[in-house]
Amino acid sequence: MTRSYLAEFIGTALLLATVVGSGIMAEDLAGGITGLALLANAIATGAVLFVLITILGPVSGAHFNPIVTLSMIFARRITSSKAVLYVVSQLAGAVVGVWLAHLMFDQGVFQLSQKTRWGSGQWISEAIAVFGLLLTIFGCIRYNSGAVAPAVAMYITSAYWFTASTSFANPAVTLARSLTNTFAGIAPGSVAPFIAAQFIGTLIATIAISVLFAEEER
Amino acid sequence: MTRSYLAEFIGTALLLATVVGSGIMAEDLAGGITGLALLANAIATGAVLFVLITILGPVSGAHFNPIVTLSMIFARRITSSKAVLYVVSQLAGAVVGVWLAHLMFDQGVFQLSQKTRWGSGQWISEAIAVFGLLLTIFGCIRYNSGAVAPAVAMYITSAYWFTASTSFANPAVTLARSLTNTFAGIAPGSVAPFIAAQFIGTLIATIAISVLFAEEER
Amino acid sequence: MTRSYLAEFIGTALLLATVVGSGIMAEDLAGGITGLALLANAIATGAVLFVLITILGPVSGAHFNPIVTLSMIFARRITSSKAVLYVVSQLAGAVVGVWLAHLMFDQGVFQLSQKTRWGSGQWISEAIAVFGLLLTIFGCIRYNSGAVAPAVAMYITSAYWFTASTSFANPAVTLARSLTNTFAGIAPGSVAPFIAAQFIGTLIATIAISVLFAEEER
Amino acid sequence: MTRSYLAEFIGTALLLATVVGSGIMAEDLAGGITGLALLANAIATGAVLFVLITILGPVSGAHFNPIVTLSMIFARRITSSKAVLYVVSQLAGAVVGVWLAHLMFDQGVFQLSQKTRWGSGQWISEAIAVFGLLLTIFGCIRYNSGAVAPAVAMYITSAYWFTASTSFANPAVTLARSLTNTFAGIAPGSVAPFIAAQFIGTLIATIAISVLFAEEER
Repeated sequence: MTRSYLAEFIGTALLLATVVGSGIMAEDLAGGITGLALLANAIATGAVLFVLITILGPVSGAHFNPIVTLSMIFARRITSSKAVLYVVSQLAGAVVGVWLAHLMFDQGVFQLSQKTRWGSGQWISEAIAVFGLLLTIFGCIRYNSGAVAPAVAMYITSAYWFTASTSFANPAVTLARSLTNTFAGIAPGSVAPFIAAQFIGTLIATIAISVLFAEEER
Repeated sequence: MTRSYLAEFIGTALLLATVVGSGIMAEDLAGGITGLALLANAIATGAVLFVLITILGPVSGAHFNPIVTLSMIFARRITSSKAVLYVVSQLAGAVVGVWLAHLMFDQGVFQLSQKTRWGSGQWISEAIAVFGLLLTIFGCIRYNSGAVAPAVAMYITSAYWFTASTSFANPAVTLARSLTNTFAGIAPGSVAPFIAAQFIGTLIATIAISVLFAEEER
Repeated sequence: MTRSYLAEFIGTALLLATVVGSGIMAEDLAGGITGLALLANAIATGAVLFVLITILGPVSGAHFNPIVTLSMIFARRITSSKAVLYVVSQLAGAVVGVWLAHLMFDQGVFQLSQKTRWGSGQWISEAIAVFGLLLTIFGCIRYNSGAVAPAVAMYITSAYWFTASTSFANPAVTLARSLTNTFAGIAPGSVAPFIAAQFIGTLIATIAISVLFAEEER
Repeated sequence: MTRSYLAEFIGTALLLATVVGSGIMAEDLAGGITGLALLANAIATGAVLFVLITILGPVSGAHFNPIVTLSMIFARRITSSKAVLYVVSQLAGAVVGVWLAHLMFDQGVFQLSQKTRWGSGQWISEAIAVFGLLLTIFGCIRYNSGAVAPAVAMYITSAYWFTASTSFANPAVTLARSLTNTFAGIAPGSVAPFIAAQFIGTLIATIAISVLFAEEER
């Protein structure tokens, strides 16, 4: 019980520490070549997701993402009341993770991003990013639950590159990344449409999943 | 039934969105170092193939490629009539995937590539690329069907580098990539010999497979 | 018995030869782009860890790290007397591995690093690095022991990037890396607080593990 | 029977086509940053090894390497007479693979390398490279035969970086790479000591394996 919330808190914290920390390290060392920074950022994030889902999946399901938790309510895999505490744990973990990254890299703890991420291309990207993420998760659950960890890791590594937004795909991550003025940041004013687009992606994914991975006849 | 076509459509769309989208992102950020762009492009494509084959393989077989579908007819794993609808779904998905990439990256939706890819080296590359791809798929099916997803992902990541053409290895992908004037594009006039070479590779692969992976005595 | 010490010796030697050797190679070839050097260093280290844990795990447990051995005493998976010889084997292997790297790269065998690694950010990084490493190991042991090799490999690849210290996370590695004045080195005067921070991370991890991965009710 | 020789021929050909082909592509596109070329070369080679061992392992054992075949004689896993034909197939495949790479990249088919690779550091590297490769193979065979493909792939990817020679670790590969005057080449005059060092590594590995992976008591 309680430990599933702790798992969501620690997992989301380590995820954000990785996204933000590897972003800082990568930008520092990339010699101005942003593509190299993004490659390191994508590999580090994918790799840590493999680890976190492997070790915390059996404890809490390893959601680390309010949209995943919401989808699990619809799939009747978590109760609404437990889901609320999951989301609270995720948000708290995400913020703590950003702050830990700042502490590791000798930065001021409290920051706000000034990086505007805006426009239809960004929003379509976020909708597609979430669409693919949910297909990945529910496809694995349906046919091959042992593949969730590598598949989500691979998906996010890829989605850093194939979406114009670098694939936030997670409202808790989006909010927390507004609290860092580094490589991975997003200006607070850009947060709302990102999250809206993520919910639109969720809606479309839910329909696709209900057709693609229906439990009946096969 | 119907959902296998949907799986081919969505899978091929996400594959092309990744090939084209990660190509745009990578070229934008590579600071003129084409090798870095190709590395990101190759990693993103391989990673998404792992995901798409893992989640859609149980639904449709995850062909995403008319040549794979054709080979599955010979292997008596799909009927000809179903195969036709597979190929239609793949072509439609491939085109939609390219357009989605354009929408994400704020580009004009309708484009034609101006990148000529021509010459015997390119065509030998495509024949070898398809030869290796089919050996990979049929070798896994024969001995270790659970390995199709990682093996195809690894194969394509490698083939981006070891073939001079960066390994299209897929007529639907080749056609669709003529509709983008970005990193991954191919001029319409270069398409036909690429596809011809892919069919020659298919022929040679079919012979090799019949010897290497024969069902009898082992 | 004896061969478990040999496994710890050889495994730690190959680990350090990789960390130091790939660091030298990477810095030599990176054209001044440190981020590229670190990427090669991180990939090489993660990949060799996958191999060493896969082949030597069944022989000795593949600790290669005094902190892991210490944790295994608390987990009652190794006796104290055997643990002492494990640590001796790890230290000897680590030093030999550094020297082998020097021999391979035509460098003087005996060196001392002049690279100061100092400050609260570095120390917080080492505590977090060990915290995550132990969670990874004990989470896998608890739920999915076959995943130790890929999970530790992925964790270290990621931790090179998300910690400011590049994640030593190992007292034997830390000591041995003071004996190389190359990319991976750490000045002897910086060693003690690194190791202290690693033990603080161990303490926090032990508490977290006792809650997250408790054997009771599930 | 016959098809195991074909598997060794095709596998070694595709391996060399990858080593040489990805080397040419990588050097062409790396913009003078050799580290980036080596990274692409290492990833492409590791990835194709995963594929080739996965699909051809069940047919021939996927040696692709006279030293592996020799070790398999000692391990009584292949007869001497069959081993001779394996080595012939490997050598023929290796040469054909180099030539295919030249054809793909519009180069003259027949070349000789002018890249001298010489000195004690190079030779120690080759001995260590083979030592690690054989430990990897026999450790997997002993405890976890399903891990041969990923472990060898990861090992070679890492050994490109941690050895000063970039880890040829294979007499057939060494000979064939003297036939290309591109990134992966080795001057004919440098071949003999490389192969001698590989055999010394084999000797040391054989002793270590007999202790580490003994079949008796465990």
